[in-house]
Parts: sequence; structure tokens; C-alpha cells
Amino acid sequence: MKSLRQLLLLLLVMASGFKHVISSTISTTQFNLDNGLCLSWRLAVEANNMEPWPTVPTACLIYVKSYMLRGQYNKDVEMVVDQIYEFLSSIVVKDDDKDAWILDVDDTCISNIIYYQGKRFGCDPYDPQGFKSWAMKGACPAIPQILGVYKTLIENGFKVFLITGRDELLLGPSTTMNLFMQGFVGHEQLMMRNSTHKGQSATIFKSRIRKQLVEEGYRIHGNIGDQWSDLRGECSGTRTFKLPNPMYFVP
Amino acid sequence: MKSLRQLLLLLLVMASGFKHVISSTISTTQFNLDNGLCLSWRLAVEANNMEPWPTVPTACLIYVKSYMLRGQYNKDVEMVVDQIYEFLSSIVVKDDDKDAWILDVDDTCISNIIYYQGKRFGCDPYDPQGFKSWAMKGACPAIPQILGVYKTLIENGFKVFLITGRDELLLGPSTTMNLFMQGFVGHEQLMMRNSTHKGQSATIFKSRIRKQLVEEGYRIHGNIGDQWSDLRGECSGTRTFKLPNPMYFVP
Repeated sequence: MKSLRQLLLLLLVMASGFKHVISSTISTTQFNLDNGLCLSWRLAVEANNMEPWPTVPTACLIYVKSYMLRGQYNKDVEMVVDQIYEFLSSIVVKDDDKDAWILDVDDTCISNIIYYQGKRFGCDPYDPQGFKSWAMKGACPAIPQILGVYKTLIENGFKVFLITGRDELLLGPSTTMNLFMQGFVGHEQLMMRNSTHKGQSATIFKSRIRKQLVEEGYRIHGNIGDQWSDLRGECSGTRTFKLPNPMYFVP
Repeated sequence: MKSLRQLLLLLLVMASGFKHVISSTISTTQFNLDNGLCLSWRLAVEANNMEPWPTVPTACLIYVKSYMLRGQYNKDVEMVVDQIYEFLSSIVVKDDDKDAWILDVDDTCISNIIYYQGKRFGCDPYDPQGFKSWAMKGACPAIPQILGVYKTLIENGFKVFLITGRDELLLGPSTTMNLFMQGFVGHEQLMMRNSTHKGQSATIFKSRIRKQLVEEGYRIHGNIGDQWSDLRGECSGTRTFKLPNPMYFVP
């Protein structure tokens, strides 16, 4: 009975891009099951005090699951998105096509929550093969609030660059298709990890790409990612926006 | 009764400047005091998504008060301090007296919670004169977990530099005395804002001091502060540790 409910929930999530449906589907009250320690852990993760961290502590499995599915994650994303719109409205776009924004892909534009449900929301260790198989399906739903930001950026004449650590050779076609199908249409370029970036951490790889863009004359106004490695390093942008992600850490 | 409660909540939220987030709030049947919005706000503050923010939203007064006084703030500090000790244990101190740590003073070494109780935990706007009068009393209590870190640093041969935006001329004696009385004894230097730093933001002022230390040969391993302006900019240290502070923002 419970698994039928989970299946229905999963279908709903896939169909809706998981938006608000979840919070209203499950009756929520409180998820302070852990005496505040998992909340402290999540805060430390989001403020970049934990780097690096391998997996979600098992004691926080139910906490993180509740956080991701019962509405607080959505509220946290919306609060950041409010800040993005406020900052956006202060920018005057010039007519030289050099006003740029950077967005990460995984758990920034499109969501891996469905995949991480099968990995105990990050309590299981990272499974490179499992993740590749999932990513090759091209089935990640858009994070609706960020899709809204993306569309606003395109409509307002910003050049949008999507920078992802996904491997270009293996995941190029499925990622391009996945983004397109989810409505991410109109960005300047999808920049993926290729053979020239081998062995580089995300911070280094993404910094170098941003630096290259700046050398080409782009003004990077904003930079949105769910990992601190999206936002740290050189040429990080006038403002950075850290989306919540308590499920995994990318160095 | 229920609709009155909803109306009150709506008014509170409108007054505090929260935007479209609310539309989804009102329709839900169950909600606690803030329905997770103040938690989202606090997370956005701690992840540096809000910069700059002027005051705590009035709707979050009770939330922030509870957070500061009822244990979650302490738990959050302890979680960060656990990370500091873990990182500390990985450092091999050389015998050249150049292994350094940076600590901020206000709400890092010593606490202003008593003062901010009289300022509605940050819902009232910043009051420079009020704060100066408070700081001149030299009555800030130590944050015990950070005093523990401080003592461990000194005992392990690190050179500790306290860097604060407090005005040297006006607050030098009271700050020195306050820190001494609270057990902060043995640091290399207390570096305060003086006439040469006039008009500089905390990020700039603190970056320049750190750069100067690095030029003198110091290796800055760790940097602890409650504000992002303590931790950003040049020579920020191998690891930075953001202590929680939802009461005020220093640019």
C-alpha cells in the first residue's frame, strides 16, 4: 500500500516537475525528528563549513528525505529565486550582447531528486555508473523556479551559459535533449567537461571557463549553482546564488 | 478563528516584504508560526544569497528570538566548531611561527546577543550610537565554543590574529579589556579599524590586513567569522568557517 503511494507520488513528481504538488500531497506538520542536529548539519553544508563531505549521515536520512519532498526545499529555492529576481531588476542590459549569466545544470536547471530517492537521498555513496545510466535517460525534470529565471534572463537579452561537469562525450546528447525537452531553449552555449578538463576539480574547471568568457568580453552578472564549487574561484560573477542541496557534495 | 489567523499571518508577511512566496502559503491548511519561511530566510542569509540585507523581517522576530535563545543557535555553532577541530587536527604546525589563524571579534569570539535582545533581535535598524555605548561597557560574554577553539589554537602554536571592524580610537581599551576578561589571552595581535581604513567595507579592510600578513610570511590556515565580509576577498585562508548570525549584516 505504501509502495503504491510512493509510486503514485513518483508519477506525480515526474509529471509535474515536482513543483508544489508534493507539499500539498503529503500532509506535513513537522520534521524535527532529530533534535535539531540534522538541521545544524544542513546549515553547515549550505554555508560551506563542511567541505568536503562524503555522504549524508545515516541518522539524517528521514530528515533529508522530508526536507526534499515535503516542501521546505521548495520554499528554500523560492527564497533564493526571489533574491535573483531582485538583483536582476537592478541590472541595465547593454546592447553589446556581453551581459552574461552562468547556470549550473544538475540540481540547478534540472533535478536529480528522483534518482537520489534510490540512493537514500545521499546516504549511499556516490555511484558514478548509476548516475551515468540515469543521466543518459535524459529524464531529469526542470526545477520550475529556475526555468522561470532562465526564461526571464533570455527574454531580457542576457547571454546564458550553462556549465556542467557532465562528460561531453558520454552525456552530451542526452543532456542537450533533456534540457531542450524541459524548456531550456535559447542559451548561448552548454559547456560540458571534455578531455581537456580531465582531472580538474569542478572549481578549477568552471573557473577557467568563466575566465575565458571574461577574456572574451562578457560581464558575468550572476552565477547560480547548487554546489559551492560552481560559485567559488575566479570570475565567479557579481553575485552568486547558492541553491540548496543537502544530498551530495561536488569538490 | 482559522481565517483570522491566516489574515494575521498574511498581514505580517506583507509587512515584512515577502513576495509571491505567500500565495502558496495561505492555501495550505496546516502551518506553524512561519510555515518555514523564516527558516528559508535564515538559510538564504547563511548561504550569502541575501547580500545586503538591512534588518530581520518583522514576521521573523519570534523565530529569530527562539533560534538565538532556545538552543538551535548553540547547536549550529557546535556543528561548525566540530568541523574546525577536524580541520585543525589535519594541520602540521611548523616551528617558524608562521602558522596563523584569523578570528573576527563580534559574535565570533564574544557575543552581542544581550544587546540585540534590546533591538528586537535585529528587527530594529542598526543603531551606531547604541552599539558603541554597549561595546564601551566591555560586557560581551565569550562564545564558549569559540573560546575553546581559541585556546586550542594558542596551545598548538598557531599565531592568532583577531581582526575587527570596531573603531580603535573609541573602542580599543574596552575591547581589549573585554577580550582579556573573557579569557582571550595569548593572541598575536588585535587588529582594529583605524583612520587608515576609513570608508573601507569590512571585506576590503579585512582583506588588506590578511594580505599584509601573508606578505609577512604567515600561512593563514583558518578564518572564522559570523559575517561573509570576514571570509570573502583576498587571502581568506585555506578554510573559512561561517558562524551563524541571523541578527545583522555587515557589508
